[in-house]
Amino acid sequence: MTDTFPPNQQFLLAARPVGLPQAHDWQLHEQAVPAPAEGEIVVKVLYLSLDPAMRGWMNEGKSYIRPVAIGEVMRAGGLGVVVASRSPRFAVGDHVAGGTGVQRYWSGPADDKNAGFVKIDPNVGKLTAWLNLLGMPGMTAYFGLREVGQAKAGDTVVVSGAAGAVGMTVGQVAKRMGCRVVGIAGGAEKCRFVVEQLGFDACIDYKAGGLHAALKQHCPQGVDVYFDNVGGDILDAVLTRINMKARIVICGAISQYNATAPVKGPANYLALLVNRARMEGMVVFDYAPRYHEAVAELGAWLAAGKIASHEHVVDGFEQFPQALLMLFEGRNLGKLVLKVADA
Amino acid sequence: MTDTFPPNQQFLLAARPVGLPQAHDWQLHEQAVPAPAEGEIVVKVLYLSLDPAMRGWMNEGKSYIRPVAIGEVMRAGGLGVVVASRSPRFAVGDHVAGGTGVQRYWSGPADDKNAGFVKIDPNVGKLTAWLNLLGMPGMTAYFGLREVGQAKAGDTVVVSGAAGAVGMTVGQVAKRMGCRVVGIAGGAEKCRFVVEQLGFDACIDYKAGGLHAALKQHCPQGVDVYFDNVGGDILDAVLTRINMKARIVICGAISQYNATAPVKGPANYLALLVNRARMEGMVVFDYAPRYHEAVAELGAWLAAGKIASHEHVVDGFEQFPQALLMLFEGRNLGKLVLKVADA
Repeated sequence: MTDTFPPNQQFLLAARPVGLPQAHDWQLHEQAVPAPAEGEIVVKVLYLSLDPAMRGWMNEGKSYIRPVAIGEVMRAGGLGVVVASRSPRFAVGDHVAGGTGVQRYWSGPADDKNAGFVKIDPNVGKLTAWLNLLGMPGMTAYFGLREVGQAKAGDTVVVSGAAGAVGMTVGQVAKRMGCRVVGIAGGAEKCRFVVEQLGFDACIDYKAGGLHAALKQHCPQGVDVYFDNVGGDILDAVLTRINMKARIVICGAISQYNATAPVKGPANYLALLVNRARMEGMVVFDYAPRYHEAVAELGAWLAAGKIASHEHVVDGFEQFPQALLMLFEGRNLGKLVLKVADA
Repeated sequence: MTDTFPPNQQFLLAARPVGLPQAHDWQLHEQAVPAPAEGEIVVKVLYLSLDPAMRGWMNEGKSYIRPVAIGEVMRAGGLGVVVASRSPRFAVGDHVAGGTGVQRYWSGPADDKNAGFVKIDPNVGKLTAWLNLLGMPGMTAYFGLREVGQAKAGDTVVVSGAAGAVGMTVGQVAKRMGCRVVGIAGGAEKCRFVVEQLGFDACIDYKAGGLHAALKQHCPQGVDVYFDNVGGDILDAVLTRINMKARIVICGAISQYNATAPVKGPANYLALLVNRARMEGMVVFDYAPRYHEAVAELGAWLAAGKIASHEHVVDGFEQFPQALLMLFEGRNLGKLVLKVADA
């Protein structure tokens, strides 16, 4: 059976990066796809999700998930099609999403806990939406905004990384909830995209300077919810504009992930005291038992054309190292996805 | 009537301090005590509460309460006895607590909103307990620990400024709730006081060095609630030890109040993300409608000898400027109180 597949290609973590991941931090490895044993499946990877969180997984030390080991296949979410199965759980031809890792073929037990494959419906919107609106970024946005951010109609919601995978959906969901939504993104092109394509009320180009003045202008009633994907100076600036009982969702800190200097803490954190406000971290995996709720609501909106799932697709498995850097250089518009193969 | 009183003495704010308040930031002013008009009272101040928050009130700029104006009597909580009354609300001889300001006599309408006088029972413990356990510090500790910190039996609670007014009560209340309680204070004498007199499980002397190791040793199960009165490096150190879903109560940041350099933000704030933890500010005034609950419970414990209210009394109104500095130099053991007059 396995002789019907070309060799599997994998990106292994070769070294722990200092700062931005470099070419020598990766090793491209090739091995045969093993024949599935009883209970096992083989998944042909079609798309990989490229996420800021991947940078954290490359570091040593305690985090919410164990680090990727040196010599191990780089962890990544992906989706693909089942091409061999000795499990009643999945049939050949099924589309699945899960932790495929950065490789062309995933093989192992159909119920592997780390992979956590779930069957996906290729007819709900386009396939890549399952790595975006209907995948981890969408789940993060949905539960972060609603459960941690406690957003409600009439709130002013600010979201950084507004043109990125999570921010895009945070803003669109907040708009549907009746909030005023102000994005923060880097560059005029992204800001145009956020306002014109995604329907945010405003978007602030933090690279243009004058962040404080722009926040004041676009949030005349102050900020009730800040969904933070970036940390650093932007977090500090928003802290100066928060309202009483504001909620700050700490979802990420992309500005700090590759920092070789110590992380810059939010100097204005005492705004929390003055405003009786809250800053709270979230990790999407905690909401796994409730993903189906979000998929149902977001999927219905997607099918009805009421919400968009924008992906920035880079074509070619071997582009992985360079494509990952696009995240940290802010070059992606929408969810960054690597196309590995045609279905 | 007023000719029965000696002249009133007042400390006015003469200038906005840079760093620690200096002698030239104050002006000692003398004026006659006016005769009370209809509805007014005169209160002879017996004790003044000296609090870290007073430093913040001396700065310009938006905060949870307006700044003290230049030339205005310095704001302070205090307690005293009514010595003249043309109001049915208070009788001569009543003991009252409220915003007396730093002066020997307060006079004005009995229902003045800023003063907010309430009658106190001089027979519940000693009088000074009304500026401590049964006053603002006690209220702050009680509601901060329970409502914002959501402490529960079995939690490990860490509190900084453990020998100070708020920290003292946080730890004692947490012990009564069935928590493991670890204090942080400056110096061996304070730490002995906190463990031996207040019954904390342990107290870490941050001046002795090795804060990280000590936290690890004394919080073997991690930290569930951190009640922060100090900010700065201690907040950062505790962040490295927090548990999943930990609650950090931002009550103050005495290490930063006199800073002339920018405030140091908590560089380890991403521990909130990893641990889905929360950092939330509190201002005690929000709980004013519920003070009576805390006074009832804490007062009963005090009467039964189950909780202590330790005050560090400095004698003499004219000692105010120097006494205030004791707070920022960490020289007080327990709640710092200025004795203004005998009853």
